[in-house]
Amino acid sequence: MIIEISTKQLTGALTKVQKTLPSSSHIPVLNMIKICATDSVVTFTTDDSKNSTSYEVPVGDGESVSIEQEGSVLVPKVFMEMVKKLGKGVRIEVRNNTTSDIGKLIKICSTDEKINSQIELQGLCTDEYPISISTNEKPTLTMSGAVLTSMIKRTVFAASTNESMAILTGVHICIKNGSLNFTSTDRHRLAFVSTKVDTIEELGNGIVVPASVLDDFSKVVNEEDSADLYFLDNKFIVKTGCMTFCTTVIEGIYPDTSKILVPKDQAKYHFILNRKEFIASLERINLIAKGTKRSAASTLTIQPAAESILVEDDNSDVGKIKEEIFVKGLIGEVLKVCYNTEYMIKALEAKTTPNVHFSFTSNVQPIVIRPDDEDDLDYQIILPFRSSN
Amino acid sequence: MIIEISTKQLTGALTKVQKTLPSSSHIPVLNMIKICATDSVVTFTTDDSKNSTSYEVPVGDGESVSIEQEGSVLVPKVFMEMVKKLGKGVRIEVRNNTTSDIGKLIKICSTDEKINSQIELQGLCTDEYPISISTNEKPTLTMSGAVLTSMIKRTVFAASTNESMAILTGVHICIKNGSLNFTSTDRHRLAFVSTKVDTIEELGNGIVVPASVLDDFSKVVNEEDSADLYFLDNKFIVKTGCMTFCTTVIEGIYPDTSKILVPKDQAKYHFILNRKEFIASLERINLIAKGTKRSAASTLTIQPAAESILVEDDNSDVGKIKEEIFVKGLIGEVLKVCYNTEYMIKALEAKTTPNVHFSFTSNVQPIVIRPDDEDDLDYQIILPFRSSN
Repeated sequence: MIIEISTKQLTGALTKVQKTLPSSSHIPVLNMIKICATDSVVTFTTDDSKNSTSYEVPVGDGESVSIEQEGSVLVPKVFMEMVKKLGKGVRIEVRNNTTSDIGKLIKICSTDEKINSQIELQGLCTDEYPISISTNEKPTLTMSGAVLTSMIKRTVFAASTNESMAILTGVHICIKNGSLNFTSTDRHRLAFVSTKVDTIEELGNGIVVPASVLDDFSKVVNEEDSADLYFLDNKFIVKTGCMTFCTTVIEGIYPDTSKILVPKDQAKYHFILNRKEFIASLERINLIAKGTKRSAASTLTIQPAAESILVEDDNSDVGKIKEEIFVKGLIGEVLKVCYNTEYMIKALEAKTTPNVHFSFTSNVQPIVIRPDDEDDLDYQIILPFRSSN
Repeated sequence: MIIEISTKQLTGALTKVQKTLPSSSHIPVLNMIKICATDSVVTFTTDDSKNSTSYEVPVGDGESVSIEQEGSVLVPKVFMEMVKKLGKGVRIEVRNNTTSDIGKLIKICSTDEKINSQIELQGLCTDEYPISISTNEKPTLTMSGAVLTSMIKRTVFAASTNESMAILTGVHICIKNGSLNFTSTDRHRLAFVSTKVDTIEELGNGIVVPASVLDDFSKVVNEEDSADLYFLDNKFIVKTGCMTFCTTVIEGIYPDTSKILVPKDQAKYHFILNRKEFIASLERINLIAKGTKRSAASTLTIQPAAESILVEDDNSDVGKIKEEIFVKGLIGEVLKVCYNTEYMIKALEAKTTPNVHFSFTSNVQPIVIRPDDEDDLDYQIILPFRSSN
């Protein structure tokens, strides 16, 4: 393999695939990055045995890539840092290692004449590297990259981080009646987002994709590209732009969460408030709790007379804080509800509308947060604490 | 105490004093920030029992501070984060706590009408807080803040981090023949910087100031201000702009380092090279070593015939790297010298001239690095490794 590639293209590609490069795998080949050059494209691949990312740099994309000789090689991690320090571009030449069957010698030099550096890295041949799953079939559905990342960001945070409940560490993805639904829950809160999609496929039971993997993925997607989604046997594949991302789904049956949502018309308490104003108040309140070791709980008291809610934390040794927030459309009596402040902040941050609608049936029943303008296509549920006072 | 102050002034002052606020001291009052308001100035102070920083905000500096009632109080750490979230400015009102003799209640509200937040923090009275050392005397010397921070940055890195050699964890500061000298060493390398100062004082034995403390201090100094330096009994005080910084010197006798420097005319090997070019080469070489666990050593070979040096690392499992750097004024035979790559990078970064002069007597004698244009006012010494080849 002999290629010349610009540093910009190269570091761009390496950054995209970096998330699924394991920090230290006991399988040596997985600690390396696969580079494969065919006549028209150079592909960079990483694989942590459960997830893999490939990024393609096509020839003819400006003059930034040229392929003199096809081939493939596994390069060590140091390659990523090294190329950043070699000026505008690099020439990579791979030769067989005369002392080893599987070893390869990777000669790297800068295309910058000023940089007089001769580098020889120890590579490996690609025979033992996992084979990429080919997806030449028609995708299950195609959607906007921006919508996909938004759906990921608005659900991943509510998944459990407790590995003993493996199924809850994932986001449940299903297709029902022409809607793509994302659900996540850690038993104390739940996030749900739904969007209409153009597909005739049904995937009622859905699949469960690790939340941390989706989160990493959402950070490297180019939101302007469209995304092709493939739901295979035990794999979930997304192709977007030059990138192909593949993850192994979590085995098991996701709990039925459809019964948790209390329909709006059955709730006794309702109010609408300004989302950003409430987040700012909760952040101040959260600071008081951070001064102590206990979990960050705060209370809200519905004040129908003043058409407001009083948000407060007065349990701290550090001090106390009280904020009054004026609300609209208040229905219900005086009531005090106690909840985890950080969960409330995260739930509000996952919304996009200026105002949000709160509803609940009592101070021990789930708090449901909906956008002001939509019905049940996007909601967050938080279970309140049972407060002593 | 009742004051109103803009968030900008307040967070500016708190940032300046933050470095000497201990993360968790067993003396409760030291975990707090002292605020003292007199008729013309509000002073913020932190103290970690060895070092302290004060920052003064004078009244009349725009309309950003006003003092309604003089007084002083200790505020908890959460105050720092809290004020950032309270809009343009805050009103701080301190009252006695009716249930405690030393307790104070600190009422904080935003001067922004939109922020309807009532905060009450638990403060303490300032009686048990360490008294600031007053320095109304004439300073030992006055110098430019920019020169002071430059001298600090060019020496602190070479101090030892090994607490078992306490004296070497400091920077030795002395005044001799109208020059202010900074020296630091960890026995394997040495950094020395000297500058002419306008003082008749002599301080031949000098004092030793903790390097980590000087490093923190150099990050908050405003380089445009001038700096007044006070050398007291066991304290070193710097007053610069609105800030007063005080540290306890390290007890003990600093080793005599004056004999380590080999005069230029006694060295056998000499060459001059481009500093930034050499740093870039060493950084590439250092990456190869980082792939392995061993300490980052590289070698340079003097090549008189080519008027160049060959820098390389070929001991790594990851690969090898070789760079040729053309030099000027080369004197000496073919010779291979082995050294710690990171020490060499740090030493070169501590220089400011485009070219640097290297000299040494043999490959086991100290390597001396001087600026190209000056003599012995600024040098770095690195002890080479004894290499097997």
